[in-house]
Amino acid sequence: MSHAPSDPSRWQKLGEATHSTTRVFEVLNARFRHPVRAIEKDFVVVRPPDWVNVVALTPDGQIVLVRQFRFGINDFSLEIPGGVMEPGEDPVTTGLRELREETGYTGQPATLLGSVHPNPAIQSNRCHFVFVEAAVRTQVLEWDADEEIQVCTRPVDEVLALARSGGITHSLVLAALLLFEAKWRSGSK
Amino acid sequence: MSHAPSDPSRWQKLGEATHSTTRVFEVLNARFRHPVRAIEKDFVVVRPPDWVNVVALTPDGQIVLVRQFRFGINDFSLEIPGGVMEPGEDPVTTGLRELREETGYTGQPATLLGSVHPNPAIQSNRCHFVFVEAAVRTQVLEWDADEEIQVCTRPVDEVLALARSGGITHSLVLAALLLFEAKWRSGSK
Repeated sequence: MSHAPSDPSRWQKLGEATHSTTRVFEVLNARFRHPVRAIEKDFVVVRPPDWVNVVALTPDGQIVLVRQFRFGINDFSLEIPGGVMEPGEDPVTTGLRELREETGYTGQPATLLGSVHPNPAIQSNRCHFVFVEAAVRTQVLEWDADEEIQVCTRPVDEVLALARSGGITHSLVLAALLLFEAKWRSGSK
Repeated sequence: MSHAPSDPSRWQKLGEATHSTTRVFEVLNARFRHPVRAIEKDFVVVRPPDWVNVVALTPDGQIVLVRQFRFGINDFSLEIPGGVMEPGEDPVTTGLRELREETGYTGQPATLLGSVHPNPAIQSNRCHFVFVEAAVRTQVLEWDADEEIQVCTRPVDEVLALARSGGITHSLVLAALLLFEAKWRSGSK
C-alpha cells in the first residue's frame, strides 16, 4: 500500500559540469529541474567506470578470496577479486581478466550473476558480479604497481558464514556473495 | 591455503590533504609509504559521514520501502529508508530518525544488524544497518527540501525476492536486506 499522495516526479537532467577529477573517478555538478516545482538545482554525482567483482568457485567447492591493504579504510580487507572495466570490455571479460591478474585463477563457464548500483544517490556507475565455475590456478600473477595481494581459497559455507558475521565488510563483495548464496543453496551452481 | 609468499604489508599513512570538497563528501589525497618497498604515493580517498539504512518490519511481517528519484543514476530507485549520521548520533538514533522523517514510521526495539564499508578501496566511511521491529506509522513526514518519497510496505518474502531478482539495485540496501534474511529465516526476528 502506498502512503504518498502521488508518485514522485522524475527530475529532468539539464546538463552537467566537471566539479573535479581524480585518478579513479570524476565528480560532476549535474543540473536538474523539477517538472512540477519549477526549481533548478545542482547535485553532486560521482562518475567512476563500472566495476566488476568475481565469485570464483573451485572444483572442490571453495571460493577464491583476496586479502589486501585498502587505502580508503587504512586497513586490510578480505574480498573477492575485482576491478575496473576497461573500455570495450563486457563484465564477464573484465571478471575473468581481474581474476587471472590478481589470483592466477581461470575457469569456465563464466556468467553474469547480477548487477547493482554502488550508490544511486550520488554515484552513476554500476558494479557487476560475475560467477566463474571450475576455477583453477593456471596463470602467473600480474599485479598492478601498488597491488600486493594474499590469495586464498575457503569452503563456500565458511565464506558465507564470514560474510554474515562481519568478517567481510566490503558492501559490494557482501552483496555478491549473498546473491551467490541462493544459487549455491539451490544446487544450480 | 595461501598462495602468496607472505602477508601483504601494511602501508603507513603519512598524512592527508584536501583534494576537493562537495556538499556530501570530501575528497582527500592521502599519502602512504610502503614499509618494505620504500616508496611513497598519494591515493584518492573519499570521506563522507557514516550512513545508516533501516530494515523496518511491521507487525504483519512487511518491510517499509521508499521509492524516489536518485540523481546519481538519473532514475528511480526502490530502497529501504536511510540517511547520513549527524554529529553525536549513534547508528540506531540515526536510523530511527531517518525512518520517522522519510516515512512517518516509528518502532521498537531498534538494534544494529551489521556494519559495512561501502568501498574500502577509495572510501573511508561505514554504512550501518539498523533493524526496527513493530514499526507502525505514527508521525507526519518531514522530508528534506529536495526529497519526494513514495512510501510503501511489502511482505518480507516479496521484498527478498525483489532483492534477489534485480528489482532492488542499491548495493547497500541489497546487503542490508540479505543480511536481514538470515535473521528472518531463523525466526529470531
